[in-house]
Amino acid sequence: MNFVEVIARKRDGGELNAAEIGTFVRGATDGSLGDEQLAAMLMAICIRGATTAETRHLVEAMRDSGDCWRLGEAFPGCVDKHSTGGVADTVSLVFAPLVAACGVPVAMMAGAGLGHTQGTLDKLAAVPGFQTATDRAGALQRLEQCGACFAAQSASIAPADKKLYALRDITATVPSLPLITASIMSKKLAVGAGRLVLDVKWGAGAFCKTLDQARTLATGLATVGEAAGERVRVLVTDMNEPLGRHLGCASEVRAALDVLEGRGDERLRDLTVELAVEALVLAGRAREAAGAQLHDALATGAARAKWDEIVTCHGGDPDPGKLAVPRRTATVTAGRAGHVVAVDSEGLGWLAVALGAGRRRAADHVDYAAGVVVHARLGDRVEAGVPLVTLELGDREVDLPALLARAAATIGINERAPARLPLVALAFGGDA
Amino acid sequence: MNFVEVIARKRDGGELNAAEIGTFVRGATDGSLGDEQLAAMLMAICIRGATTAETRHLVEAMRDSGDCWRLGEAFPGCVDKHSTGGVADTVSLVFAPLVAACGVPVAMMAGAGLGHTQGTLDKLAAVPGFQTATDRAGALQRLEQCGACFAAQSASIAPADKKLYALRDITATVPSLPLITASIMSKKLAVGAGRLVLDVKWGAGAFCKTLDQARTLATGLATVGEAAGERVRVLVTDMNEPLGRHLGCASEVRAALDVLEGRGDERLRDLTVELAVEALVLAGRAREAAGAQLHDALATGAARAKWDEIVTCHGGDPDPGKLAVPRRTATVTAGRAGHVVAVDSEGLGWLAVALGAGRRRAADHVDYAAGVVVHARLGDRVEAGVPLVTLELGDREVDLPALLARAAATIGINERAPARLPLVALAFGGDA
Repeated sequence: MNFVEVIARKRDGGELNAAEIGTFVRGATDGSLGDEQLAAMLMAICIRGATTAETRHLVEAMRDSGDCWRLGEAFPGCVDKHSTGGVADTVSLVFAPLVAACGVPVAMMAGAGLGHTQGTLDKLAAVPGFQTATDRAGALQRLEQCGACFAAQSASIAPADKKLYALRDITATVPSLPLITASIMSKKLAVGAGRLVLDVKWGAGAFCKTLDQARTLATGLATVGEAAGERVRVLVTDMNEPLGRHLGCASEVRAALDVLEGRGDERLRDLTVELAVEALVLAGRAREAAGAQLHDALATGAARAKWDEIVTCHGGDPDPGKLAVPRRTATVTAGRAGHVVAVDSEGLGWLAVALGAGRRRAADHVDYAAGVVVHARLGDRVEAGVPLVTLELGDREVDLPALLARAAATIGINERAPARLPLVALAFGGDA
Repeated sequence: MNFVEVIARKRDGGELNAAEIGTFVRGATDGSLGDEQLAAMLMAICIRGATTAETRHLVEAMRDSGDCWRLGEAFPGCVDKHSTGGVADTVSLVFAPLVAACGVPVAMMAGAGLGHTQGTLDKLAAVPGFQTATDRAGALQRLEQCGACFAAQSASIAPADKKLYALRDITATVPSLPLITASIMSKKLAVGAGRLVLDVKWGAGAFCKTLDQARTLATGLATVGEAAGERVRVLVTDMNEPLGRHLGCASEVRAALDVLEGRGDERLRDLTVELAVEALVLAGRAREAAGAQLHDALATGAARAKWDEIVTCHGGDPDPGKLAVPRRTATVTAGRAGHVVAVDSEGLGWLAVALGAGRRRAADHVDYAAGVVVHARLGDRVEAGVPLVTLELGDREVDLPALLARAAATIGINERAPARLPLVALAFGGDA
């Protein structure tokens, strides 16, 4: 196969077959194609798009570029959950104990944070001693012991995705729905839980700025996942403001505990329960019974107890008193009365990074104590002087007045209340 | 400047400014941008195109990436000629002595052949001892001595083009009019003859398969060249069959001598005279007087004598008896009577390469004795048994029956005569 001719066909908007896409992915995995040919193909895909068949070939070739754990074969009914990336998205930390407490095994592959969204891997690392599984044996051991496992994406899972993502990052080929679909689904299929709940974010703080883009990504993910034999449910959910109120590692662990103890943020709780219902439905429960069972698990403390069990099973110390705390805090307040008409998720996410709660580059150190608390919610009626945003400072030296000014700029206040947006906009796939 | 954002704007069809294009070209020249970023930008330009302003910025940045010879400043009225690449295109070898014999200095940058078109540099190298100029001083010395110089593109002329062309070749980004325009014009402007005659080929054997593509390329070249201060004339000429009858290095030198001696192929002579008229018009002659002067230069033997003078001045031996000759020949003949309806230039070009007369890869050795003679012309009425194509064999071991079969397949014969196409289809630029 002359790969230049393959690139040329995609350049001209043609369709590639499985063998051609296989050569592309193998080239990324074993270095048999140069970075310049991979980059040219990525740009051609980014501009010309890809058919459903092409996207499926890409996903499957990327899945098969490394180890396949097939966790669902060892734990039938096992469920995985993934979000396309949001701000103050603490769902995973609540979802795992909640669903596991209802008897459905949870196997979650967690990623490190990069850019304005924080990663579940970093939040878990804020729990002293917590060790995520790094191979199939470790994942199975945790699943057997406590019914849930958090795993870190190892180098041997979908290595083609690692290579291609690093190239996409520097060649302006990240925002491509087929490439995003392939990146997400190849890793999910390599873990192979068998059942998958996806949370596709839409809105100002998400990659998909419009509901249409999110709908396209969501249906693409569902189609490709189901074609590969996975049972998939996708919810398209609101990211026009942060999901919860807390950004930062230790801060989000505490926010998760608050929800598990029946307090905590309503939006975080409501979305976690919506996603957990889908997980239980995929595991065969009736939808109404699933909702009732989840509320029981919260009300009786079963989910809260499961958290301690999961932490202990992962080698961690469940004592919340051991979590890092901010050295000091600083709060910006409303300069005027009115309605909250804008909460800039992305700006808040970058603010958390500036405080040390996230990473600008992959090698950056994360400060578990640092974080941001968002008091303002879209549509809230506020009076002058009420708290809008609190900065939680860790060890990093920062220019506090500048950060407070940036914090104030993330909240817009105006006369008229904005329209309310539903938390869950759309649902796709599976046994709806 | 964050170059990822620059790539992203071109990816989305936006327009880049001079500084952004300058960063791109500098990145190709000094290695400050990686091949993967250059390749992504090339693919984005290839698919999205470029405005006239962008193309001009690209040409000027590529020109300035290396040495600028400014030959036209030393020799006012100096003219350069360039073809976009044809088969049996021996024009340069006739053009230089013919135009120089009329008192107009000719400075031609010659390239090596690659792929199905042979290069003037290789044809000149078939003349024993011939040394092309490799720097400005050598070019000026030859111009002073004989009124014409052939120069080889040195590494210091438009080095950005060398780097980008090598990348384009392996990333399927060769067929882009703005990139082709930039590649041609950056080198022409770096030599800086001041007056430029361009021969844009169109048809089955050319890069521009349609007259529309050729028109777009031709007007683009004229616009960009004139904007940079060059006086430019562009002819769009027929490459639906080979221009002359001879392909191969020594073979084309003999074909050029035939034309200079008043014999030889009519199409080769006619097109050379058409292009030479443009050169003389650019040098200030009236069009009719120019035509008469050129015919005189051929009829009196002045052009033929100038060839010997140019060869001697370049250190070569003008004795035609010293040119390499084929070791043997083999001819395919017409299997049936009819009209010649197809002569596959590209197929004939690759046949010449297979015999050793050209290069598949840049490092390949060229056999000066090898070549192909095309007897059939589009529209000719032929009888069964007349010669169609003769293979001129050099030192290379070849599978002769297979090559004869390929040669036979390059000529199509049918009942109805095809439409006649004009040798010169269009003309643009300059003082028309």
